[in-house]
Amino acid sequence: MTEAPPVWNEGDLLFLWGSPRDSLLLPLQRGVHSVEGRGVVDLTPLIGTPPGGTFEWAGRRYRVLRPSLGDLFGALERKAQVVTQKDAARLLHLAGIGPGSRVAEAGSGSGWLTVALAFAVGPGGEVHSFDRRPEFLEVARANLRRVGLAERVRFEVRDVAANGIPLTGLDAVLLDLAEPWSVIEAASRALAAGGRLCAYLPTFNQLERTVREMRDASFEEVRAEELLLRPIEVGEGGTRPSFEMLGHTGFLVVGRWMGGPW
Amino acid sequence: MTEAPPVWNEGDLLFLWGSPRDSLLLPLQRGVHSVEGRGVVDLTPLIGTPPGGTFEWAGRRYRVLRPSLGDLFGALERKAQVVTQKDAARLLHLAGIGPGSRVAEAGSGSGWLTVALAFAVGPGGEVHSFDRRPEFLEVARANLRRVGLAERVRFEVRDVAANGIPLTGLDAVLLDLAEPWSVIEAASRALAAGGRLCAYLPTFNQLERTVREMRDASFEEVRAEELLLRPIEVGEGGTRPSFEMLGHTGFLVVGRWMGGPW
Amino acid sequence: MTEAPPVWNEGDLLFLWGSPRDSLLLPLQRGVHSVEGRGVVDLTPLIGTPPGGTFEWAGRRYRVLRPSLGDLFGALERKAQVVTQKDAARLLHLAGIGPGSRVAEAGSGSGWLTVALAFAVGPGGEVHSFDRRPEFLEVARANLRRVGLAERVRFEVRDVAANGIPLTGLDAVLLDLAEPWSVIEAASRALAAGGRLCAYLPTFNQLERTVREMRDASFEEVRAEELLLRPIEVGEGGTRPSFEMLGHTGFLVVGRWMGGPW
Amino acid sequence: MTEAPPVWNEGDLLFLWGSPRDSLLLPLQRGVHSVEGRGVVDLTPLIGTPPGGTFEWAGRRYRVLRPSLGDLFGALERKAQVVTQKDAARLLHLAGIGPGSRVAEAGSGSGWLTVALAFAVGPGGEVHSFDRRPEFLEVARANLRRVGLAERVRFEVRDVAANGIPLTGLDAVLLDLAEPWSVIEAASRALAAGGRLCAYLPTFNQLERTVREMRDASFEEVRAEELLLRPIEVGEGGTRPSFEMLGHTGFLVVGRWMGGPW
Repeated sequence: MTEAPPVWNEGDLLFLWGSPRDSLLLPLQRGVHSVEGRGVVDLTPLIGTPPGGTFEWAGRRYRVLRPSLGDLFGALERKAQVVTQKDAARLLHLAGIGPGSRVAEAGSGSGWLTVALAFAVGPGGEVHSFDRRPEFLEVARANLRRVGLAERVRFEVRDVAANGIPLTGLDAVLLDLAEPWSVIEAASRALAAGGRLCAYLPTFNQLERTVREMRDASFEEVRAEELLLRPIEVGEGGTRPSFEMLGHTGFLVVGRWMGGPW
Repeated sequence: MTEAPPVWNEGDLLFLWGSPRDSLLLPLQRGVHSVEGRGVVDLTPLIGTPPGGTFEWAGRRYRVLRPSLGDLFGALERKAQVVTQKDAARLLHLAGIGPGSRVAEAGSGSGWLTVALAFAVGPGGEVHSFDRRPEFLEVARANLRRVGLAERVRFEVRDVAANGIPLTGLDAVLLDLAEPWSVIEAASRALAAGGRLCAYLPTFNQLERTVREMRDASFEEVRAEELLLRPIEVGEGGTRPSFEMLGHTGFLVVGRWMGGPW
Repeated sequence: MTEAPPVWNEGDLLFLWGSPRDSLLLPLQRGVHSVEGRGVVDLTPLIGTPPGGTFEWAGRRYRVLRPSLGDLFGALERKAQVVTQKDAARLLHLAGIGPGSRVAEAGSGSGWLTVALAFAVGPGGEVHSFDRRPEFLEVARANLRRVGLAERVRFEVRDVAANGIPLTGLDAVLLDLAEPWSVIEAASRALAAGGRLCAYLPTFNQLERTVREMRDASFEEVRAEELLLRPIEVGEGGTRPSFEMLGHTGFLVVGRWMGGPW
Repeated sequence: MTEAPPVWNEGDLLFLWGSPRDSLLLPLQRGVHSVEGRGVVDLTPLIGTPPGGTFEWAGRRYRVLRPSLGDLFGALERKAQVVTQKDAARLLHLAGIGPGSRVAEAGSGSGWLTVALAFAVGPGGEVHSFDRRPEFLEVARANLRRVGLAERVRFEVRDVAANGIPLTGLDAVLLDLAEPWSVIEAASRALAAGGRLCAYLPTFNQLERTVREMRDASFEEVRAEELLLRPIEVGEGGTRPSFEMLGHTGFLVVGRWMGGPW
């Protein structure tokens, strides 16, 4: 998706942008293929052309782009609540994740945070994603395939609270599950010294218990926060905050593992 | 900083963590070196050891870590207002920046956003940073050197409003200057199709004018927002939002260049 | 509504509360009367009984109460956008309005702010409400009658921007109209020394112009603000901010007239 | 303070306004009196003049005004944390308090909320204020005297959690103490049917327990919220939210007593 080739090759993931309300992700394949709800398309002529060109399809003109992370999210399916983009970007930052990072998450949910992780660690990184519910793992796996990032993620059906995290030396562990405190001990064993544990939680009660138990378990610099996103609208009559706004998504908790009591 | 070698080599950037209030970044050098305000240190014994070990210095024990982006910010100097970490992480996401991206920013300011950009594009990316004020560029350049990312950034004293952006095919252009509208035209010529222009602005007036002029200049999906970070404190007496909070940092504007009128 | 008589008299306004979703305001009248959408009722037996008793109607039990301001709002009709309760309460406070105050407002809108004003000034106060649109004035007038406060309000069809405010010595003037700056001069002539001018505005552009022109017109202590109301939900699973929240209602501007340049 | 006499009489409370940073409350007395930190003043000439006039003192010109609630707050002393004006105004609204209301509060604290209550109930209302700490009651009492509202308030040293509220038929009970749940039962006995119980609390833990116990005690329409006040600054360079903002003051809880299980 990055380290872009100068021209499109078979198998590349294309982001076709026709308008703010008409865009889609498609893998570049030879021959005629059907696209759900849109009829058929033959993308063969794009092979060997540079990214950024245009493509005519069903009477409309599309820009053919390499997708960015935000574009990928638009193509995902969801099952239950997902981590929003504002929170995902913040979690990556709090967790100190960048190109080359080795990270684990539990649970996978619909794979939205997984996509952000796989994007951020780049081709040199590693993402391990655990969920004890096989049906969620299937949704997450399909989402990762859909955005061309499946190779960077190893999914496993596993109850990490009961069975631990079968890894060591991780840069970060991210938790999006109802009882994150049940994984704190396991996370400390999986983290490298200096690695970070992050949790994403809807309620104050979960936040409080997670912060207290992380402190008790010798995590350092444990803190919690909330991020509020306020859209601003610029219209004919002037500029104002949007009347619509998500009142709450989730709280974020982060702490750092220094290898034990310090 | 990432793609970590299994052991420390001369020239690596170390993050020494002693406590929440005692941590510092140091380059790994042979022999005795003086550290401003802290006396002298000889890090030679760390060469060849793996990251995550401990180091005794002046009677204190430090964990020796590879720094993450948040750790780098702690080592930066500031001249005037800087882009906060919450906004930097969000700007990277809005701008669609990831490993391998080619981006430009104006102005450089103290280089805080530059550090975030250099970190996020990884070793395969490119960051071009312009400022018309040489004294700021010096601060920014020193900050990038301090965190070991100077090689990924090309700084140039340049008034981009007057003289344009001497690049093409960029994935993103980021503006942190008082009159971002004066660079919109130049940015459109520097961006690849599908690339994004982002601006960071303190006032509603700047936000409004930037959004309107980006729309007039045929940018697509132009929108504005504000991100509020609310720390939550878990103490003896219970859990509550922190009494202290930044009331405002800046507004964020983003739009996408589709190669001209669509 | 206040200075309660010890027993209900004919003509009193009753608040019948049956459940959080079943309550209504009714005037106490002798004999059988029909209530829109609910059939008929005969409240005669309540005459002479003390407030706080119960009443059986159509198989349901109702508590018979003197309505508070919040109860009154529940009975109002709306035409277009109204001032929310959180903003109305704050405006009253910023405007320094209390029992006995003499105030004017323009425009009347649907009369929601008018109701709050009439309630707060008490029987010894005075409210003058102007709107140039007769159809709005009718809605407002009906709303005031509905809540039993019509006697405290004098409505007038009047374009105060063009024709001024035909009063002097007011404690406060409140503006809920698109171009409040066009009434600043008129308001200064209508206010007593020390009186306050308040405006309620959706956009930052209106806020900015209103603040600047109030300062130019020698108003003192001119300032602007926004009030955000965040509901918190306590449920089975714990406590969290509500997912739903109004992202924006209006900005509030207030300034004080000291009789001219000071 | 309201029901204003047309002219100043001895004993009236004057608000002398000289500039945004120079204003004070003084009782109108005959003869020369000393004012702490400001030398002496003789206000005798004001007797018999109408409010709104000017007065020269120590070379400065003051406007002589009837104080509004906000002006009163400026004259209060504080001991420990006080209820902010934004929260006080909202509490009055949530509690349904207006001219003529009969209310009780515990604890008195420094009397800031007491002042707001005394102002809002008007001369026909009643305020009962309880605190078990005599030293706080003294501060509160002095504050009420200072703003000329002492006659509307009956203070009592009393631990209402242990000894109940010695009143019945109240329109509202307001709680600003650490364990409001310990007063819920007592409040229900003191309230009239339809009356409201409000609590002001810093932590989510207190909020949660108060809401749950009020529901268990058969209070109706129990809900919680938080009010955030965001100042907006209009300056030379444009308009923006203020960089400074209180991140948190307190949560508000309100419920209604319907006389028992419904």
